[in-house]
Amino acid sequence: MAPVLQPQPSSSSRHPRVARLVAVGDELLSGDTVNTNATDLAVRCRELGLTLDRVVTVRDRIPEISAAVRDAASADVCFVCGGLGPTSDDLTAEALALAAGDTLVRDEAALARLEAKFAAMGYEMPDINRKQADFPSSATIVPNPIGSAEGFCVTVDGTPVYSMPGVPRELRRMFDDEIGPALAKRFELDAAPRRIYRAIGRGESSIAKLIEPIVAQARKTPGLESLFVHYRASTPQVLVVLEAPPSASVDVPAALASLDEAVLGAMSPALYGIGEATMAQRVVTALERANLRICTAESCTAGGLGATLTDVPGSSAVFDGGIIAYSNDVKMALLGVSEADLEAHGAVSAPVAKAMAEGARKATGSDLCVGITGIAGPGGGSPEKPVGTVHIDVFDGEVHLHKKLQLRGNRGTVRHCSQQWALKLVWDRLCARGLASPRCE
Amino acid sequence: MAPVLQPQPSSSSRHPRVARLVAVGDELLSGDTVNTNATDLAVRCRELGLTLDRVVTVRDRIPEISAAVRDAASADVCFVCGGLGPTSDDLTAEALALAAGDTLVRDEAALARLEAKFAAMGYEMPDINRKQADFPSSATIVPNPIGSAEGFCVTVDGTPVYSMPGVPRELRRMFDDEIGPALAKRFELDAAPRRIYRAIGRGESSIAKLIEPIVAQARKTPGLESLFVHYRASTPQVLVVLEAPPSASVDVPAALASLDEAVLGAMSPALYGIGEATMAQRVVTALERANLRICTAESCTAGGLGATLTDVPGSSAVFDGGIIAYSNDVKMALLGVSEADLEAHGAVSAPVAKAMAEGARKATGSDLCVGITGIAGPGGGSPEKPVGTVHIDVFDGEVHLHKKLQLRGNRGTVRHCSQQWALKLVWDRLCARGLASPRCE
Repeated sequence: MAPVLQPQPSSSSRHPRVARLVAVGDELLSGDTVNTNATDLAVRCRELGLTLDRVVTVRDRIPEISAAVRDAASADVCFVCGGLGPTSDDLTAEALALAAGDTLVRDEAALARLEAKFAAMGYEMPDINRKQADFPSSATIVPNPIGSAEGFCVTVDGTPVYSMPGVPRELRRMFDDEIGPALAKRFELDAAPRRIYRAIGRGESSIAKLIEPIVAQARKTPGLESLFVHYRASTPQVLVVLEAPPSASVDVPAALASLDEAVLGAMSPALYGIGEATMAQRVVTALERANLRICTAESCTAGGLGATLTDVPGSSAVFDGGIIAYSNDVKMALLGVSEADLEAHGAVSAPVAKAMAEGARKATGSDLCVGITGIAGPGGGSPEKPVGTVHIDVFDGEVHLHKKLQLRGNRGTVRHCSQQWALKLVWDRLCARGLASPRCE
Repeated sequence: MAPVLQPQPSSSSRHPRVARLVAVGDELLSGDTVNTNATDLAVRCRELGLTLDRVVTVRDRIPEISAAVRDAASADVCFVCGGLGPTSDDLTAEALALAAGDTLVRDEAALARLEAKFAAMGYEMPDINRKQADFPSSATIVPNPIGSAEGFCVTVDGTPVYSMPGVPRELRRMFDDEIGPALAKRFELDAAPRRIYRAIGRGESSIAKLIEPIVAQARKTPGLESLFVHYRASTPQVLVVLEAPPSASVDVPAALASLDEAVLGAMSPALYGIGEATMAQRVVTALERANLRICTAESCTAGGLGATLTDVPGSSAVFDGGIIAYSNDVKMALLGVSEADLEAHGAVSAPVAKAMAEGARKATGSDLCVGITGIAGPGGGSPEKPVGTVHIDVFDGEVHLHKKLQLRGNRGTVRHCSQQWALKLVWDRLCARGLASPRCE
């Protein structure tokens, strides 16, 4: 079967508005910092209906920042993040003054606000922070209610260029409060409807083989002629994202939803959910609806599953806690795993995973427990139990749901996959009891 | 004090070799995937002595990929990652054929290797994977021992362009085994020496104010004339990175190390370490050297501290496990926190943090324990104890080291900062006992 030809680029009834981001910072190019700001802004652009078609990361060098911004200004809007701090390597304001043909000017009102912020925290403002009150002469200042670096907007070749601080929470706040709403109004934006299908337990190729005929068929449906399919493989998970341009005459979200039956049929039982909610969010929501509480008994993931579950705000309604049983002594002392099982089967075995789940459930009094024991590597493997061998057991007082995994990858990958599979097994058990379904968020 | 003028760009005795990365994938521009490949490659470039001066992220569109690569090819070497998979949105090989003026050609030997890989896993190869054996006609193939997508190298405008798969572990492996060594040989690379000073407990501005005079003075030292300082603030941590070009006549690493005394004096007691090792790595190493074992008692971080400690390979030598006491019931049942303390002081209080540390230490028999209880938000705050209130207690059987934090930021930030501060307190206790120092890795 030949790959289905994709419509390129997707056509829309309305001119799509294109955004570009210039991310500034040596720390992004030395590998000291992961560029999560690009991700945060990408999500916001998509939700707003802006097409982010390029991100350029440059160093803290005035000519490089300035050139990248001038180049990006052929889009409808340009964002710049980073380089607004007080230190000598913070050069974005100067670079944007150059790009906009401005000079840098001290804003006395901004300086007063800056001094007031330090005073409110009980500090005297260091002199070096004064430069944070310097802006390109034509700039409009964007307030920063939670940090010292105010943002600003200048115009380059007729395109608005918004400069935001690199501190992630300050950037998000500034975009959500000020910049996003201003752009939505200015460009009358419409987000492209999309539908996400989420699976754990089937590979990308195998899923694509099942999905491509469904997509080809769907393109004969009014409103879905330009249906675009993306595959996002992030071990152990594969997401299938179907996206179509908004339409004035067709209810595109409904047209996308009409594909659910076919996709569910093709991707079950790996498919666990439809929509934006993550596995952890779905598990927490389903447990809360069912009025059930959960706990964890972790060895190789060592708290990572508890941390993942409690990333979800409000998870205290369903999560009691758990036991991190990294050593065999703790497995015995706190989870009641028997020395006999440890000796006969080893710490990484089905009986030990089962005993861990039972032990933690008893200790905490939770309704469900999930036990995980495995070899994350790089050491600890053997020919019989190589690195990546993991046993997971979900116990709800009635049924043990067990899975043995043979994972590939490094320590981080093995631990991450173990956590995701543990959640998938909890989800499967809830589905089997009629307490959840892929259609639930 | 005016900010110290930075040398721009840094001069070197030898022509620095410049690398650029083109990262391909709609998932990077929709915000569904964080671009960790850029970070992984950035670290590798720095360690190799290549100057990565730009990363450009583009969509899965042939003209956009091709244009970005042609543009990046003015560097000495160009990397491309992503878009080598089997699905219809994987278009990098076609785009690079266009950029190199090639056509796409099926490589029968590559097809045979691909089929053999599937056979070895016990699967029949889906037809759609056949396209992974298509390469630009002038390409040199780069092997992928752990995945289906082989990489390749083509020449664009005389510059080598290396295309790697987007799966992070496959990309890392391909770079480490093949591409990095080939480039080191071809360009006779020298990494710029750098020295990192790591602090928790002091702000970026305040640190910069102390560091800038030291840097200004250091630039009078032979070998450090072009000393460059970077500040990396990642709450609650601030890193100061001093970097200088390699020199044929001066021992630059030694010259950098000669600044330690001055920097230590300026940044203590926030400064916890000199060098590349993270807080967690240092704690694990120091505990192992001291033959001490640790456990955790976590409420608001809910396993995150255990997971962070055990991210360090070999941490099983020092980490016993811990108790995630998210609910008050678990705090009482498993940690022996008294109902009286919970009622009198609340779950987020110094006495409860102290009781948690004592309780987990007793339950596991570890030498040290760290207890964390706090309000991560968004709910649960009150005027007396707003979101971000966290109590941490480190107990080693003799001394309780306690810290109350009043953190700002969202749920993720509060949890992350709590973990980092918990490690810092353990470190401080080890330093106080003479078992660790900022000079230890």
